[in-house]
Amino acid sequence: MRQYTPVNFADVTIEGDFWRERLDTVLTRSIPTQHRQLGEHGILDSLNLPQPPPPLRYPRNHHDFTVQVFWDSDVGKWIEAASYALSHRRDADIEGKIDEIVEQLAKAQLPDGYLNCWYLDREPQNRWTNLRDNHELYNLGHLLEGAVAYFHATGKRRFLDIMLRYVDHVATVFGPGAHQKHGYCGHPEVELALVKLYNVTRDRKHLDLATYFVNERGHQPPHYFDVEAIARGEDPADFWAKTYEYNQSHRPVREQTKVVGHAVRAMYLFAAMADLASELNDPTLTRALEVLWKDVTSKQMYVTAGLGPSKSNEGFTEYFDLPNDTAYAETCASVALIFWAQRMLNIDLDGHYGDVLEQSLYNGALSGLSRDGEHYFYENPLESDGKHTRWKWHTCPCCTMNVSRLVSSVGGYFYSTGKDVLAVHLYGGNSARVTIGGQRVQVKETSTYPWSGRIKIAISPEMPASFTVKLRIPGWVRSATAAVNGAAVDVGANTSSGYLSIKREWKAGDTIDLDLPMPVERLYAHPSVKMDVGRTALKRGPLVYCAEQVDNAAPVDHIRLPRTAKLNAEARSDLFDGIVTVTADGKAVDDAGWQDALYRTAPATGKETRLTAVPYYLWNNREPGRMTVWIPEE
Amino acid sequence: MRQYTPVNFADVTIEGDFWRERLDTVLTRSIPTQHRQLGEHGILDSLNLPQPPPPLRYPRNHHDFTVQVFWDSDVGKWIEAASYALSHRRDADIEGKIDEIVEQLAKAQLPDGYLNCWYLDREPQNRWTNLRDNHELYNLGHLLEGAVAYFHATGKRRFLDIMLRYVDHVATVFGPGAHQKHGYCGHPEVELALVKLYNVTRDRKHLDLATYFVNERGHQPPHYFDVEAIARGEDPADFWAKTYEYNQSHRPVREQTKVVGHAVRAMYLFAAMADLASELNDPTLTRALEVLWKDVTSKQMYVTAGLGPSKSNEGFTEYFDLPNDTAYAETCASVALIFWAQRMLNIDLDGHYGDVLEQSLYNGALSGLSRDGEHYFYENPLESDGKHTRWKWHTCPCCTMNVSRLVSSVGGYFYSTGKDVLAVHLYGGNSARVTIGGQRVQVKETSTYPWSGRIKIAISPEMPASFTVKLRIPGWVRSATAAVNGAAVDVGANTSSGYLSIKREWKAGDTIDLDLPMPVERLYAHPSVKMDVGRTALKRGPLVYCAEQVDNAAPVDHIRLPRTAKLNAEARSDLFDGIVTVTADGKAVDDAGWQDALYRTAPATGKETRLTAVPYYLWNNREPGRMTVWIPEE
Repeated sequence: MRQYTPVNFADVTIEGDFWRERLDTVLTRSIPTQHRQLGEHGILDSLNLPQPPPPLRYPRNHHDFTVQVFWDSDVGKWIEAASYALSHRRDADIEGKIDEIVEQLAKAQLPDGYLNCWYLDREPQNRWTNLRDNHELYNLGHLLEGAVAYFHATGKRRFLDIMLRYVDHVATVFGPGAHQKHGYCGHPEVELALVKLYNVTRDRKHLDLATYFVNERGHQPPHYFDVEAIARGEDPADFWAKTYEYNQSHRPVREQTKVVGHAVRAMYLFAAMADLASELNDPTLTRALEVLWKDVTSKQMYVTAGLGPSKSNEGFTEYFDLPNDTAYAETCASVALIFWAQRMLNIDLDGHYGDVLEQSLYNGALSGLSRDGEHYFYENPLESDGKHTRWKWHTCPCCTMNVSRLVSSVGGYFYSTGKDVLAVHLYGGNSARVTIGGQRVQVKETSTYPWSGRIKIAISPEMPASFTVKLRIPGWVRSATAAVNGAAVDVGANTSSGYLSIKREWKAGDTIDLDLPMPVERLYAHPSVKMDVGRTALKRGPLVYCAEQVDNAAPVDHIRLPRTAKLNAEARSDLFDGIVTVTADGKAVDDAGWQDALYRTAPATGKETRLTAVPYYLWNNREPGRMTVWIPEE
Repeated sequence: MRQYTPVNFADVTIEGDFWRERLDTVLTRSIPTQHRQLGEHGILDSLNLPQPPPPLRYPRNHHDFTVQVFWDSDVGKWIEAASYALSHRRDADIEGKIDEIVEQLAKAQLPDGYLNCWYLDREPQNRWTNLRDNHELYNLGHLLEGAVAYFHATGKRRFLDIMLRYVDHVATVFGPGAHQKHGYCGHPEVELALVKLYNVTRDRKHLDLATYFVNERGHQPPHYFDVEAIARGEDPADFWAKTYEYNQSHRPVREQTKVVGHAVRAMYLFAAMADLASELNDPTLTRALEVLWKDVTSKQMYVTAGLGPSKSNEGFTEYFDLPNDTAYAETCASVALIFWAQRMLNIDLDGHYGDVLEQSLYNGALSGLSRDGEHYFYENPLESDGKHTRWKWHTCPCCTMNVSRLVSSVGGYFYSTGKDVLAVHLYGGNSARVTIGGQRVQVKETSTYPWSGRIKIAISPEMPASFTVKLRIPGWVRSATAAVNGAAVDVGANTSSGYLSIKREWKAGDTIDLDLPMPVERLYAHPSVKMDVGRTALKRGPLVYCAEQVDNAAPVDHIRLPRTAKLNAEARSDLFDGIVTVTADGKAVDDAGWQDALYRTAPATGKETRLTAVPYYLWNNREPGRMTVWIPEE
């Protein structure tokens, strides 16, 4: 059961430089240029259908790259991100663009409520015949998330009503009835969207439909994807991915113990399962999720919180298989990990969930967005020979809008409220309006986090009130100190499961001082991660660092870091808008004695060199070049 | 120009245990079972064609896996290996099997001499239309090598005559004439086979044809493979490999400076170029080969002398890209490197060629053959999680017969003769009959090489004679000593380019004592080989060692070797037929503190463990298990 409720991002005003800059960039650069890209790449045009019933305009193969089966989802995700932007600041131009899309969708929708532009345009007779491959419910999910967000941002119901009609249609098609399809989507997403819808409508049927999809998943025999393949005249064995692990339908969700397959699909599924664990108070789901959480975070996650080493399935492989240079680590997967982590945190306020949420937010997810807000990484390797660079658009542009919707709603990950509790998960300057035990409380944090761990939080209830403030003490902190109105709090004695509890009667102006010291640390990987043997990653606070060629005189792949070298944090106002770099006296191994020798009996010797590392999320924003997170020690 | 001529393997009787065992295994196990496998897999049957002109029996796609375009080559290579076996010991059964094949080929041959069973059976109208992909001349090359070997072994001319008719036909089809095709095979092989034929016939036209193919290769525009693709109605840009680097036809051979593409193709081409450099006394070819030799050995070769890291092109990628677990390192490529190295050595008696020849022979090539002689590696990775195991047969069985023909003629790599010189390249007990300056000389070596470097060589000319014995001092030797009839020779003063020269009047019974000390050594890779950073490989004499799980208590991937640990050579009569293992006091890093942690601030700690390593060529002969060549140091 959910113990905590996240404070909505719209109630959190980001004021600290770090997130203010990212948020402004997304609002002023990413969201407008993404709309332009959606237009230039024909995605918006794909919604502009003739009146139903439409002719079969382009009888081409599935999955070609002129009109993609998942384009509806990109539109939905853009509307969601743009709606979050509107929550920060109404904007007639953006609203006009969204309304235009909504009218196209209204026009395209069939009388029975069906609304999938790809099928409507090309194969209206084939709808609901290939849930395994064709993203039909996935598209619905993203449109639904967009509709919910737009409703919250503007109060306008038209888009929401369109989607409600579509959902009603879907609920007639899918379900346990004899004449219904016992199916679910190959790409989970609609499930968590339906829970969002339920939280608007509070109509049990929306929750029931999400529950049906989650519970049905993986039940066999017969496996639904086999049934529909046979109905299409295909041999189920011809499934290109070869295994239903690919879409997490290899077994019922409660029986899954290893995180497998396509990483984004897995994370969306687990987020939905966590939603249902809360909404239904279903401990069987919670227990399954705890096993899966431990599985992925202790055996399958990059230090950047990147997920899914393999390009071939965009997902997971073997335990401890975490190659750096070929890491797939899709931006969407790290974003979706944040969704899952937040849901787990609100079921069970354990700092480990918050640690991973923060680790992903500041590293594997944020790296997907360029400094200028108009370039993106789809894949986030931890090592590059200089050839991996950011792109302006992608044939599958999922990551662009995913990182936009994350950043434009980042304030929503900072706080939760529970019974007489305010929980603080993330740090960074902000002002928030929260309600605790019916009492309105103004919270104002002043800090330059993540560059410094010195944090001041003013807690101002309208009237003096007794409640507990729970402050997350990140797992990377060795010795936190805290004080209330200058009086020290015993952090050790009052911290459990990663949260420091301060229970008192709070009155306006009460101030917490929290200090989370941030020495630069070396991280080492589990000895079974063979790519990282003998290597170290540098971390300061929540930020993982990397050595980029542009900052280093020696070739980055030739730099070695002596085990004893002192690591320095250096404030650099000249880089970006001011960052903290990590420097150390390293060694640069020498090619000199190796001109003709590929192997020799003496190891390479090194000359002194200065190692400079920058936060990983910032890499490839200046020029192409070599980069590495894991630096060999000496 | 060739300075030296190899002493034929038939004149070298292998007596030392090491090669005697391998040779007997190939003669008594590999060659008979390979014939059985050729039968069971339909390869022999594919030769059994109806009388020409044959009907189109199986109109299927190219490159399917029922009848393969390269099967003729497998038959040719088996006949070659079997013929080498016959040179050791005539065997009516084997001869009968070969004669049966020869009669099938005779029956299949067209009146104009054409003889390619795949085309004859399926697309006789399409012969010589796809040299790029369909191995037509490659098949001819291997049949030709088989015919030459069978002729040498038995004196029977029938197979040779069949092939001579085929070669005559080919010489009418290909050449500079206006009505001839200006083509060459996508897979080099026929070129070196034609030089072998020339050395039997001494008919210049055979050398000229080889020269034509080599010189024509890569000339453009137009590129021959473009021309024939267009003639087939195909777009040359649709070539699946995307680049003519794949088959080394991206530029004329003398202009090639980087070793690229499919590794076996490259090695066969370079071997043929070296043949022509000798036969034609063409320094432009020698200079190109010297550049290519340095390129591949100093930037692209595994420590086992494996070549070609990538499965996708069965070949080369970027400089220093030498991943251990995914190493392709095809057995055939290491075998073919030996062919090339031997030819270079006879052009220029430089020990470096001998070093690489030996490195490949004892490691990357020999690893392809199991202890029982009936199982094979196609790929030779330097690290395994236990899933890589030997197979009994392969859809592309090239490596099986390649390692057989190598081992069954291994004596042919031991010696060369030059003007008044006997050059000794390899060591191991043997008796050889050589001719130096017209004088017959009996050579008898007694040693347990490669287990020990203590070598005794008796040089017994029929009559006392003055000539030079040149003894290769391997590059891995730090301090060799030598004596003649007990009188010390100054090794340093008399060694140049890796060969110790002893010039004197030799008389029957003169004995050289050579001591090549074999301490266990650590090798380190060039710092740009990222997989090997912080790791060491163990080597003793010519043998590279690996840690196999079966010999080690700790998980092999968790073993670390302190930089200061003493390395011991231990004679183990209980393993195989008696080998020398390498042992050391290592550390086994502990999973104990890592149950829930994928990353932590303290590196893994280790407990003492005994490291036992065995020669790489022997791995996976006892049970499946983890294996690694490159061991992390501590």
